[in-house]
Amino acid sequence: MNTLAVTDGQVLRPDHSIERTDVLIDTDNGTIKQLGEFDGTADKQLDAAGGLVIPGLVNAHTHVAMTLFRGAADDKPLDAWLQEDIWPVEAELTGEDVRAGARLGIAEMIRSGTTAIADMYFFMPEVAAVVEEAGIRARLGHGCITVGKDDEAAHEDFEAGLAFAREYNNTADGRVKTLFTPHSLTTVDEQFYEEYIPKAHEAGIPVHIHANETPQEVEPLVDEYGKRPLEYADDLGVLTDATFLAHGVHVDETERKLLAGRGTSVVHCPASNMKLASGMAPIQKLHDAGVTVALGTDGAGSNNDLDMFDEMRDAAMIGKLAEDDASAVPADAVLEMATKAGAETLGFDSGRIEEGANADLAVLDLDSLHLTPQHDLVSHLVYAARGSDVRHTVCDGQVLMEDRELTTLSADDVMAEASEHATELFGRAE
Amino acid sequence: MNTLAVTDGQVLRPDHSIERTDVLIDTDNGTIKQLGEFDGTADKQLDAAGGLVIPGLVNAHTHVAMTLFRGAADDKPLDAWLQEDIWPVEAELTGEDVRAGARLGIAEMIRSGTTAIADMYFFMPEVAAVVEEAGIRARLGHGCITVGKDDEAAHEDFEAGLAFAREYNNTADGRVKTLFTPHSLTTVDEQFYEEYIPKAHEAGIPVHIHANETPQEVEPLVDEYGKRPLEYADDLGVLTDATFLAHGVHVDETERKLLAGRGTSVVHCPASNMKLASGMAPIQKLHDAGVTVALGTDGAGSNNDLDMFDEMRDAAMIGKLAEDDASAVPADAVLEMATKAGAETLGFDSGRIEEGANADLAVLDLDSLHLTPQHDLVSHLVYAARGSDVRHTVCDGQVLMEDRELTTLSADDVMAEASEHATELFGRAE
Repeated sequence: MNTLAVTDGQVLRPDHSIERTDVLIDTDNGTIKQLGEFDGTADKQLDAAGGLVIPGLVNAHTHVAMTLFRGAADDKPLDAWLQEDIWPVEAELTGEDVRAGARLGIAEMIRSGTTAIADMYFFMPEVAAVVEEAGIRARLGHGCITVGKDDEAAHEDFEAGLAFAREYNNTADGRVKTLFTPHSLTTVDEQFYEEYIPKAHEAGIPVHIHANETPQEVEPLVDEYGKRPLEYADDLGVLTDATFLAHGVHVDETERKLLAGRGTSVVHCPASNMKLASGMAPIQKLHDAGVTVALGTDGAGSNNDLDMFDEMRDAAMIGKLAEDDASAVPADAVLEMATKAGAETLGFDSGRIEEGANADLAVLDLDSLHLTPQHDLVSHLVYAARGSDVRHTVCDGQVLMEDRELTTLSADDVMAEASEHATELFGRAE
Repeated sequence: MNTLAVTDGQVLRPDHSIERTDVLIDTDNGTIKQLGEFDGTADKQLDAAGGLVIPGLVNAHTHVAMTLFRGAADDKPLDAWLQEDIWPVEAELTGEDVRAGARLGIAEMIRSGTTAIADMYFFMPEVAAVVEEAGIRARLGHGCITVGKDDEAAHEDFEAGLAFAREYNNTADGRVKTLFTPHSLTTVDEQFYEEYIPKAHEAGIPVHIHANETPQEVEPLVDEYGKRPLEYADDLGVLTDATFLAHGVHVDETERKLLAGRGTSVVHCPASNMKLASGMAPIQKLHDAGVTVALGTDGAGSNNDLDMFDEMRDAAMIGKLAEDDASAVPADAVLEMATKAGAETLGFDSGRIEEGANADLAVLDLDSLHLTPQHDLVSHLVYAARGSDVRHTVCDGQVLMEDRELTTLSADDVMAEASEHATELFGRAE
């Protein structure tokens, strides 16, 4: 057995208590073998002195290659932003662009302590290749859409989505699992849900869609079908305990009960919801109804970074505003969203530092001005820490960053490549 | 003339254009002498290659020593938080505690590119001493309160506030200026406004108060006086063009017009307003009414950091939610709030990189994953950059941080001292 020892740190346990212990990892199978005092024998040792060992964060909804769009178009509402700024450029995307954007996004996430993602985008084999190369864990889906397409083109898109999901599931030593990802309830015709959802279920592929992000996504469905969007989704068989929905901003009480009953999770994307003025998701109410809520950055075009520490802070902040109650969505609940609930939503045995779990973790430097004094480390993780505090990142027992240096990707190459692709892409789209 | 040259960077100009130019500083008088190509002769050179030179950020409302409370009590509404968690501990504060907390907060701000602050707290001579030592620029006021005090104690407090404001104005080579700071409209009796506001005006000391932060601060005044809080404040002579108000969350149209007419500024504290669920300040409407809006972190107890980059991002985010419009409070307006508007509000000739202005600036590293690609640097400053991207900080022509190393304070000493004082303070308060 080859081993990695993470030594001399404090460790955040699954109940959010803090324990001074070493972490011994079996790097052959990528799991945590033991918590306890290090006996001095390991193939590799990672110094966590003065640091806090936390589960690798889970970014449960993103479009990772959209890092190429970072800062290209801000301060616009979702519809105009998509139609005027995003879709025309996306029409010019190549697989090589997606590969460059994915490298940039995944490098950024490793640097900020994220070890697992769910990604819905295009040219997904390219993203799968980058996930394999970079060493993180991912659920990947080819985003399928019917709006603006004839029947043949729409079928091609859905067949491609299904083929990708079947072909790439459990690749990269099991670090890549797949999703079936119709874009949303309003951008995909009903008949395609009827035709393809049973196929996804049959193949054992979880479904992930955007849902109830803006009022403009709710009203047309209510008008046409006389029911709420998630009732409509449920009638189409979309809502299962393997399905997870991005956003869920405008979900009413009936829909919250429905989600809880079906075991369907919601991925909250607070930064994107604020930046696009989509609204405030009722996270406390979803929690109270018993819905599992994970956390995601959405794409870098609407965020504009992929730092899950920002996202945790945003979730706590907007959660209080939404309820008009400063005790709503407390730090503890938010940390759970970014770790355990995220891992459960994606179906990975990660998100907790515990014997037997995947060895997906990050070590934070606590020895800094903005984390002093240390009354409460859970509070610090949510309200004061940031991605740049992460010293080491480990996924599947492999060290992906040590002392802020990436091991599987070259930050310089990634930045140069992404800048070049962004310039060329936006040049072509002009 | 002694000089400092900031070389090879890009420079954010007052109109938010980006120019490739060197910045030559006269360190004798602490002002920017010249923008243009560096001729190779300067007493000191600061390398800005690959970086962006921006005005030092202005944190126009904070309680800097409250860094000692960081993470001590979260997820509680303002009233309960103050009465149960903050005030009982503040009652035990010593001057030495405040000095330790101020050192921590100012060190944190220098590290994140902030060069000017407005601070309202206790033991203000201690804070003034730390400002002088640390090298930043500050407006300082002793917070005066009458609630819970008898007439004699209240008068003592107000006399102390006035004495501090008179004695410390224009000290530390002009880097320290003062404020007269009654705590708020509901925690100070009317007669004290009547008695002391004329004295502050007479002494030429600007007034700074908390106002309209929560509905609980608005209703009692409306009930008792039949007018809005800012109409009440105006009748007491509080609103002038030298006065600035913290928060202004719950200001109606009449009050916005009143503020614009009087030339009174508002300091927006978005993180604090979210974390305490105080509400969403109508920043776009204040802008539209012609009110100058600056930006502040409030204390670290309700934030929980003093990073003005976080605050800029929060201001843009919450500004859009408040208006239900993604084009509200755009990046450009937010950057203005944190620089030029902040400096104007505090009465400092800073907040812009321009010949003749105070040499208060920060140099950001642009060469990082989360700032790649570079479609728009103003967007990056607001939506993607963070305090840890700041490489150098200069105030009054003096280098306060070079290559992330503080020059006037020792980060290690500051952290050790603050941790010790926080532990002892909370121990005494138990």
